[in-house]
Amino acid sequence: MSAFDTLMAHARETQALAQVAGRLGWDQETVMPRGAAPQRAEEMAALEGVLHARRTDPRLAEWLAEAEAPDAAGAAQLRLIRRQHERAVKVPARLAAELARVTSRAQGVWAEARAAQDAGAFVPVLAEVVALRREEGAALAQGGDLYDALLQDYEPGTTAAEIEAMFGALGPRLAELRSAVLERPAPAALSGRFDEAAQHALARELAQAFGYDLMRGRIDTAVHPFSAGSGLDVRITTRTDPADPFNCLYSTIHEVGHATYEQNIDAAYLLTPVGQGASMGVHESQSRLYENQLGRSRAFTGWLYGRMREIFGDLGIADEEAFYAAVNRVHRGFIRTESDELQYNLHILMRFDLERALISGDLAAGDLEAAWNDRFGADFGYAPERPSDGFLQDVHWSVGLFGYFPTYTLGNLYAGCLHAAMRRDLPDLDESLGNGDPSPATGWLRETVQRHGGLMEPRDLIAAATGEAPSEIPLLAYLEDKFGHLYGL
Amino acid sequence: MSAFDTLMAHARETQALAQVAGRLGWDQETVMPRGAAPQRAEEMAALEGVLHARRTDPRLAEWLAEAEAPDAAGAAQLRLIRRQHERAVKVPARLAAELARVTSRAQGVWAEARAAQDAGAFVPVLAEVVALRREEGAALAQGGDLYDALLQDYEPGTTAAEIEAMFGALGPRLAELRSAVLERPAPAALSGRFDEAAQHALARELAQAFGYDLMRGRIDTAVHPFSAGSGLDVRITTRTDPADPFNCLYSTIHEVGHATYEQNIDAAYLLTPVGQGASMGVHESQSRLYENQLGRSRAFTGWLYGRMREIFGDLGIADEEAFYAAVNRVHRGFIRTESDELQYNLHILMRFDLERALISGDLAAGDLEAAWNDRFGADFGYAPERPSDGFLQDVHWSVGLFGYFPTYTLGNLYAGCLHAAMRRDLPDLDESLGNGDPSPATGWLRETVQRHGGLMEPRDLIAAATGEAPSEIPLLAYLEDKFGHLYGL
Repeated sequence: MSAFDTLMAHARETQALAQVAGRLGWDQETVMPRGAAPQRAEEMAALEGVLHARRTDPRLAEWLAEAEAPDAAGAAQLRLIRRQHERAVKVPARLAAELARVTSRAQGVWAEARAAQDAGAFVPVLAEVVALRREEGAALAQGGDLYDALLQDYEPGTTAAEIEAMFGALGPRLAELRSAVLERPAPAALSGRFDEAAQHALARELAQAFGYDLMRGRIDTAVHPFSAGSGLDVRITTRTDPADPFNCLYSTIHEVGHATYEQNIDAAYLLTPVGQGASMGVHESQSRLYENQLGRSRAFTGWLYGRMREIFGDLGIADEEAFYAAVNRVHRGFIRTESDELQYNLHILMRFDLERALISGDLAAGDLEAAWNDRFGADFGYAPERPSDGFLQDVHWSVGLFGYFPTYTLGNLYAGCLHAAMRRDLPDLDESLGNGDPSPATGWLRETVQRHGGLMEPRDLIAAATGEAPSEIPLLAYLEDKFGHLYGL
Repeated sequence: MSAFDTLMAHARETQALAQVAGRLGWDQETVMPRGAAPQRAEEMAALEGVLHARRTDPRLAEWLAEAEAPDAAGAAQLRLIRRQHERAVKVPARLAAELARVTSRAQGVWAEARAAQDAGAFVPVLAEVVALRREEGAALAQGGDLYDALLQDYEPGTTAAEIEAMFGALGPRLAELRSAVLERPAPAALSGRFDEAAQHALARELAQAFGYDLMRGRIDTAVHPFSAGSGLDVRITTRTDPADPFNCLYSTIHEVGHATYEQNIDAAYLLTPVGQGASMGVHESQSRLYENQLGRSRAFTGWLYGRMREIFGDLGIADEEAFYAAVNRVHRGFIRTESDELQYNLHILMRFDLERALISGDLAAGDLEAAWNDRFGADFGYAPERPSDGFLQDVHWSVGLFGYFPTYTLGNLYAGCLHAAMRRDLPDLDESLGNGDPSPATGWLRETVQRHGGLMEPRDLIAAATGEAPSEIPLLAYLEDKFGHLYGL
């Protein structure tokens, strides 16, 4: 076998084992007996140990030095294998083990501190996590910027400076739009009780309409909706709230965006490094585009209004236009995950600034709560009164995910770019959406983005799909147009 | 770390990974999307590769040479680690890979041949499987008996000669009892339709009554009932037939026997070689004792009759005695898995003889169907008219399980021994069973058998629990007494 073929066979096995780890994660969140947790922790640790040993295998460096890619896809495979190997060997085993141990403990401390509204209880372990991630960033950056180094895990090939340029242009315009919208009268919200089995049935119908293949997937219930797996086994979860069917329906459409991305990657890349989504940002671009630009569009909500009235009877909403306004209702609130399309990115922008300050050392863990509350007050005009509404609301930092938050807004920016290009290519898209059929849009995404998997770097992929370098301009234009219309600005 | 501690840490990780493989097996039979099968095969192969590499790791031999067991449990751990390592290194990698490939193909060929009633289509691949298992047996036996060598995977420390001695005494007496019973009028069977949700609810109630801990387990639906996992995560499956609630109820009690065995092993052995059941035979002794000696007893069925009438209303059965007869109805049939307690072992005895002849070379794969039909006719008095009722009914041989069948009857023999000893120790057992409470019996088994896991060799474990070497005598006495009473012999 050539060095390239040897390398690919090794990568394929590694990828298969990574899929097994993902399957265990799914199991844990959906079906695992509660009492199994301590044993599962050992099972996962053993499997992570196997994966780490494979990724640091010294033979990889030898094979990489000799391997010649037969084509562009092969070159992409080598790029991704090299990146993963180099990342793995740069981090000392001692540090990797300590990070695993401390973040595991920190997640528990965070959950308890949040439940008890005890901010101070979380600060010491947060300081430990930050210190360890700074140490890891230094090992990875080798003289470069720590935050940029951490960002590569989630958004390879992208720098904080590139993100900052876009976020900086986005922030003030979003804040302005938000103020204008919140001065206008709030539209009516949905009212009533909505049968949960009927919500599940409609969610399943929507999932299939958006292209989710249930032969290679399944839908279960979990506390937090997620998508797991790639290739031939990509599962999603959802949840229901009898008072709020949009929670179930739109979280399902969102997860279907993630899941169909993985399902639609070219079968030739199955169980290889290229056979995964290109980045967290590109992943989020698919889920958000499915959920917002398609699912919350005037055309699709017009169809959904009729479908939901067939199923649930009267919704307490006068007509299609009022339903569209209810789906896209902008409301005050503290919680990122409950936020609407307009304000969501403001939540992310402040987290991006705060976490960079933590990683650079400009902000101490002990000062985070005050900094959070100041910034939230400045951006939103009111401040959280308890930590669970403030800096303790998200799990991310407790488990060491620094560099992850900006990918949510990157996803929205990429979705804005892709949506603008899609609309140019599909002038009659609203006609299909108005019939409850998003397939021209999902087909366009499959061809321009999804089938390529990790073939290109994220920004190159978006540029190739749209013909332009990614920027904040299309998203801003879309949001200003949509919410300007909805709120009569 | 001492060599012993190093070895145990290694074994613990191996065991954790083996549990992961078991979890994937559960997933495949219960929740896996159908289209995921090809990817799952690669995931399993990668994980099996990891396990094989760990079990053949040359460092094991070094550690084993140096390790000193601190106590009896440690000595048992060393015995099991050594056995697994020696088995793994005796089989050449080429042969192991070929066996995996051929048996995977053979299982598909078997399923198609059975569906098409095409015996000839199965013969060539069966011949291949037999040849490879003979080769493996020779590698393992190193001059000894091939079949004995294969048997060690399922019933360590037991020889075919020991089994033959017991089976030889069992067969004629069973055949005689069977003939006498079938000359008597058949008792009434259950009639009616039984709500499947109510069957599931009652199965769950019975599972808990027999000691199954749902905090560390769960019950799902699968085509074939099974139990999977050990320690803190032991799951079972069941199935329902609207015309036959006994199918669901007794298969659940059976699987609970397997599952509680794994759940009740001393927590100190969690994720170690000793922390698993002692053998397939001992496992089957628990499941069969729960199902038959307890679940189908006069006392317990008396309680179950009342409980089922509360749930399902009239059962078409006159009274408790008639219900007891219906539960234990002896009926003509071809299929092992549908057989009753009396005839079941006759199905196994013929398979034991036939598979030994295949492995010894005395019987060619091409002559198996004729040999099967002859033997079945001799033992049962009628012969199968289609292969799916005959030698194609079981999956075992297609996947290379030679040496597995006798463990079913060994389990019944061990159950007979344990039941006799239990009755001596628990003179009031029928009183509890009559109240629907098998806990004195399951508690007795937990203390005498289950908590020890793999601490002792199977025959030693049964001898320690009962005070006597295992034999066929208690089972025969029990069956002759039970069916003599039921059929007025």
